[in-house]
Amino acid sequence: MYNNIKEEAYEANMNLTKLGLVKFTFGNVSVFDRDKGVFAIKPSGVPYEILKVDDMVIVDLDAQVVEGTLRPSSDTKTHAVLYKEWPELGAVVHTHSVYGTAWAQANRSIPIYGTTHADHLTKDIPCAPPMADDMIAGNYEYQTGYQIINHFKEVGLNHEEVQMILVGNHAPFTWGKDGKQAVYNAAVLEYVAELAFLSEGINPKIERLKASLIKKHYERKHGSNAYYGQ
Amino acid sequence: MYNNIKEEAYEANMNLTKLGLVKFTFGNVSVFDRDKGVFAIKPSGVPYEILKVDDMVIVDLDAQVVEGTLRPSSDTKTHAVLYKEWPELGAVVHTHSVYGTAWAQANRSIPIYGTTHADHLTKDIPCAPPMADDMIAGNYEYQTGYQIINHFKEVGLNHEEVQMILVGNHAPFTWGKDGKQAVYNAAVLEYVAELAFLSEGINPKIERLKASLIKKHYERKHGSNAYYGQ
Amino acid sequence: MYNNIKEEAYEANMNLTKLGLVKFTFGNVSVFDRDKGVFAIKPSGVPYEILKVDDMVIVDLDAQVVEGTLRPSSDTKTHAVLYKEWPELGAVVHTHSVYGTAWAQANRSIPIYGTTHADHLTKDIPCAPPMADDMIAGNYEYQTGYQIINHFKEVGLNHEEVQMILVGNHAPFTWGKDGKQAVYNAAVLEYVAELAFLSEGINPKIERLKASLIKKHYERKHGSNAYYGQ
Amino acid sequence: MYNNIKEEAYEANMNLTKLGLVKFTFGNVSVFDRDKGVFAIKPSGVPYEILKVDDMVIVDLDAQVVEGTLRPSSDTKTHAVLYKEWPELGAVVHTHSVYGTAWAQANRSIPIYGTTHADHLTKDIPCAPPMADDMIAGNYEYQTGYQIINHFKEVGLNHEEVQMILVGNHAPFTWGKDGKQAVYNAAVLEYVAELAFLSEGINPKIERLKASLIKKHYERKHGSNAYYGQ
Repeated sequence: MYNNIKEEAYEANMNLTKLGLVKFTFGNVSVFDRDKGVFAIKPSGVPYEILKVDDMVIVDLDAQVVEGTLRPSSDTKTHAVLYKEWPELGAVVHTHSVYGTAWAQANRSIPIYGTTHADHLTKDIPCAPPMADDMIAGNYEYQTGYQIINHFKEVGLNHEEVQMILVGNHAPFTWGKDGKQAVYNAAVLEYVAELAFLSEGINPKIERLKASLIKKHYERKHGSNAYYGQ
Repeated sequence: MYNNIKEEAYEANMNLTKLGLVKFTFGNVSVFDRDKGVFAIKPSGVPYEILKVDDMVIVDLDAQVVEGTLRPSSDTKTHAVLYKEWPELGAVVHTHSVYGTAWAQANRSIPIYGTTHADHLTKDIPCAPPMADDMIAGNYEYQTGYQIINHFKEVGLNHEEVQMILVGNHAPFTWGKDGKQAVYNAAVLEYVAELAFLSEGINPKIERLKASLIKKHYERKHGSNAYYGQ
Repeated sequence: MYNNIKEEAYEANMNLTKLGLVKFTFGNVSVFDRDKGVFAIKPSGVPYEILKVDDMVIVDLDAQVVEGTLRPSSDTKTHAVLYKEWPELGAVVHTHSVYGTAWAQANRSIPIYGTTHADHLTKDIPCAPPMADDMIAGNYEYQTGYQIINHFKEVGLNHEEVQMILVGNHAPFTWGKDGKQAVYNAAVLEYVAELAFLSEGINPKIERLKASLIKKHYERKHGSNAYYGQ
Repeated sequence: MYNNIKEEAYEANMNLTKLGLVKFTFGNVSVFDRDKGVFAIKPSGVPYEILKVDDMVIVDLDAQVVEGTLRPSSDTKTHAVLYKEWPELGAVVHTHSVYGTAWAQANRSIPIYGTTHADHLTKDIPCAPPMADDMIAGNYEYQTGYQIINHFKEVGLNHEEVQMILVGNHAPFTWGKDGKQAVYNAAVLEYVAELAFLSEGINPKIERLKASLIKKHYERKHGSNAYYGQ
């Protein structure tokens, strides 16, 4: 009944590790079935080397297990909140990838310094501030989801254009229309994070990309007359 | 009819990914047949894992497709301008390789700090400034080619000696007499870019290589009495 | 008679190299049999490529060889001291892994900057100061063990919570309930050390993680109601 | 007749590339037969992927080819000078390895910051200054050998203890009693160079290792009562 999303979630989780974006079990992908109102997510603490399609856990939007014998990832509530609030999402990814996590620990958004960044989004990759103490002490993973949602509202970002965020002190989250795109976005975030780190080292007075270049690069890939493809 | 350049372009594109110079489809190589006035280039957006010789697209110097069912890389016009203006070129490479792109984002030429650099060229690796807004808004990829050509004219560089450039805010372009050499140059640029980044970190007061060493290293490899080979 | 700990020590030593934590023979793992009062340790100077289970040397807590034809690692006395003073340990690891060693050479503890760190321990990863000259000139490897023990006492750390340390000017030591956990801790130390290095580069004014986040992340993984697992 | 040194030189050259110390043909190893007064060296410009034992070129101490159909590495004269002046050497290595070359470009000796360094030598890894212009313009590779020899004399180093050097603006040279040890030293230099780069980034006020630790670490490995081996 849930085989499609289980397989897609399994493939996406395996791709995450092939792309070098997870160390041990520091990351997970879920894939959403909007019609059924459930998503498939990596089980908790299972190493990628022994992960199987049938290990994927099916969970509803209240983070209750619908099918599966293993415990779902402890980040499940964060995924559930994102699907509930942004039902357009087809998949959600969480990693502790090196450069993305370093920017999150530094509590800085990643400035848009080049066209590699602008090919994917026109804004800095946002960094949500760390949560208030009462949110942390309470339902932490649930509140992590709302921290992301609220930050997008506060700074006026559109989650269909900007498909990635850093949670301050923590690490990256990305999403997309399906598992493949969400994992691709996690890899783009990591690549752009590394480029930005190096670029600031090479030129401490570096400035953001100018508006005309941002517009051109994004529109040729995502605009109504998109023609981009290297 | 175009099998030679298709095969050479295919091999060169595959080498680019084997050398770790492209992430996903962030890069491309074309190979030029001067007699026929056409070049073979990577199709747009096709992942390297499934790329085939016959996927290569044959394009003329006005960037019109001559043969092939796939769409050519969106960077095709840039390649076409370079072959039109510099007909000596046998191949052109574009990458978003990590260190090269970081220098481009930082809008800095790569200073000649060591003999590894001088073995390949006697000048800093130039960084063309970002284009004017009207050029960006217009025929962008076409103008990118002219930005390269014009920068070489302005700073008085010879494209047969200096076979590489950074386009400011964007990324590296390299070329050569054939696909193999152009890809080799892309790898050299990346290596020299990494060395220069680290060298500045180790010695912030670092100075350029002195003239006598530049001359010696370049001439023993490229001069009329060249004898170099490690 | 000692096959269990020999096999576990062999597996753990091989994992150390698979995880990229040792260069040549710059590292070793031992596994302790508390009932018999002996531990199995890597032989001295044997390359990982040719290491076999039966090469493991069995040593008592006075660092005397009990079984085995090869010489035990020159770090054996350090391991012996740790098992004697902290008999809860099941395994000890020593590496010269890149980022961990760089922090040790810099004589700095690794500040707790993010949740990746807090998932594993609530404190900075401590850096014991270099030893006094008379300790160095004397029974050096034995004193290295006491330098670790004494530093934990002085700064009031619990070796069951904080399972890792840097020895100033030298390199990391980690431990755990068995070989698998001790090697895992060595990998965590290296990952956290890399993240902290990058985070300080990205934000020189970076601050430590706030107390509420440290508490939450550690308790969800290690507290009495632990539920963590990505 | 020269099979022994040809095979040893071939193996050592191949190890150099397996250890990630050479890019393309940016490096070479030679192995010396003191009795016959000749050495085997990598041929010029042959890629490692197609290198064969019989490609090794046999050269005498005047850098004249004794056997072999290929041209010897353009660095041959440097190797010849080192064997002539320091006949104890069994092998010489030259690389452009990343961190070692970055320090050479920065014209800085690598300070002794940790025990990983002290396990191998008690001194900073020296950096010879760039050569005088007339030496560069003259018999350059020959003079490179004398630049190394003269720098050791000037700063009072012993080439049997310190088996490595950076040539300023250029790159590392190492040596040893045989091909295996000389290549090992090239890897040690690269590792220590990376650690020192990172350590200075982590602590800009870092100080050299104190004398007692240098003495202890070196003597336990190389002293008359050596017992070291991890």
